[in-house]
Amino acid sequence: MTMKLYGFWRSLATYRVRVALALKGLEAEQQYVNLLQGAQHGDDYKAVNPQSVVPALVIDDGSPLFQSLAIVEYLEETWPVPPLLPKDPLGRARVRGLSLIVACDGHPLIVPRIRNYLEREMHQDEAARNRWLQHWTLKALEALEAHLAKERETGRFCHGNAPTLADICLAGQVFAAGYFNAETTAMPTVMRIFDECMKIDAFDRAQPLKQPDAPKNPTH
Amino acid sequence: MTMKLYGFWRSLATYRVRVALALKGLEAEQQYVNLLQGAQHGDDYKAVNPQSVVPALVIDDGSPLFQSLAIVEYLEETWPVPPLLPKDPLGRARVRGLSLIVACDGHPLIVPRIRNYLEREMHQDEAARNRWLQHWTLKALEALEAHLAKERETGRFCHGNAPTLADICLAGQVFAAGYFNAETTAMPTVMRIFDECMKIDAFDRAQPLKQPDAPKNPTH
Repeated sequence: MTMKLYGFWRSLATYRVRVALALKGLEAEQQYVNLLQGAQHGDDYKAVNPQSVVPALVIDDGSPLFQSLAIVEYLEETWPVPPLLPKDPLGRARVRGLSLIVACDGHPLIVPRIRNYLEREMHQDEAARNRWLQHWTLKALEALEAHLAKERETGRFCHGNAPTLADICLAGQVFAAGYFNAETTAMPTVMRIFDECMKIDAFDRAQPLKQPDAPKNPTH
Repeated sequence: MTMKLYGFWRSLATYRVRVALALKGLEAEQQYVNLLQGAQHGDDYKAVNPQSVVPALVIDDGSPLFQSLAIVEYLEETWPVPPLLPKDPLGRARVRGLSLIVACDGHPLIVPRIRNYLEREMHQDEAARNRWLQHWTLKALEALEAHLAKERETGRFCHGNAPTLADICLAGQVFAAGYFNAETTAMPTVMRIFDECMKIDAFDRAQPLKQPDAPKNPTH
């Protein structure tokens, strides 16, 4: 039995797992859960992930793993090469901290369920919703920039000269900026690292618009 | 030089680090950053944590660690006893996944910066803001309940019979429900585990209202 990755082309949490799998040379059968059509709330998917969010990775013994960073940590512990975390505890704390700036304080604020709440429960028009989406997307990128621009551990990538979990999270958050037309010129270090990431095949072929379930002519 | 923990009595991300330190028998000098007065935006604190959020843990060599879960993972790697994660990768993925349900999808939606944005930028009145706070607090607790009630790994605590990082995150999220008067009777497994946690001195003395910087007669 091969692994199955439940995800959605546009989901940036799914993107993280796609990149990690690709960097480690692992294959997973893709299962598409259309978040914009509400497929995550169906009983079939809730049996896999009762939180009704993507991604979930069902591993070869049938166990469903959930939450993208927990999945990537599992992949790292099970297939350690190439490493996505440094060896030293201080370096690991920095890479995890940078990752969590995105995964906790950036990305959860811009997902469909939040956009729906702002529209339906708080009656915010599209312009107000877009200001929210741009604001929180940029706040996370600015926090990354503040760390990356001043800290000596920053190299070609977020932490030294090989990609880590932090770069995976950074790249996803830059895609979010693209989704919402958020202006990223004030974060040159982030954008330099994003460009480095996208030179790597694993980052490039995992990107949202290159997924089989992505629309041919997307409108964000 | 001893460790310094920058935090705030009411911060549930700081709570996680306080519990982890206490469970491992570690001491840290408390530094109080009053989030409600905006002290996190001062230059002094931004030199420690450029994201202007708490907690930050400055370790004995002077390095500032940031993001609560990255800090707890650092403590776990550096002082492994008692363990806050299981030994097996699958168990670690489950505990991290449960933790991230709270740390990513629950807690970041209810912090002061979000409440301020809803009030000042979206002009939501107190009743609307409270509905938001209750809604997202309960969504995370419901997701925990769905996992904990059906999965055989659940024991006296979230994962077996000793507290882990998942219990630390669960306990903090139950405090959030208390802050916002959210009704938790629909999640008996979560509340049973919360009660178990609060029998442990490390969880109890770390709680928000027992901190030296907490108000004597708090109004939430």
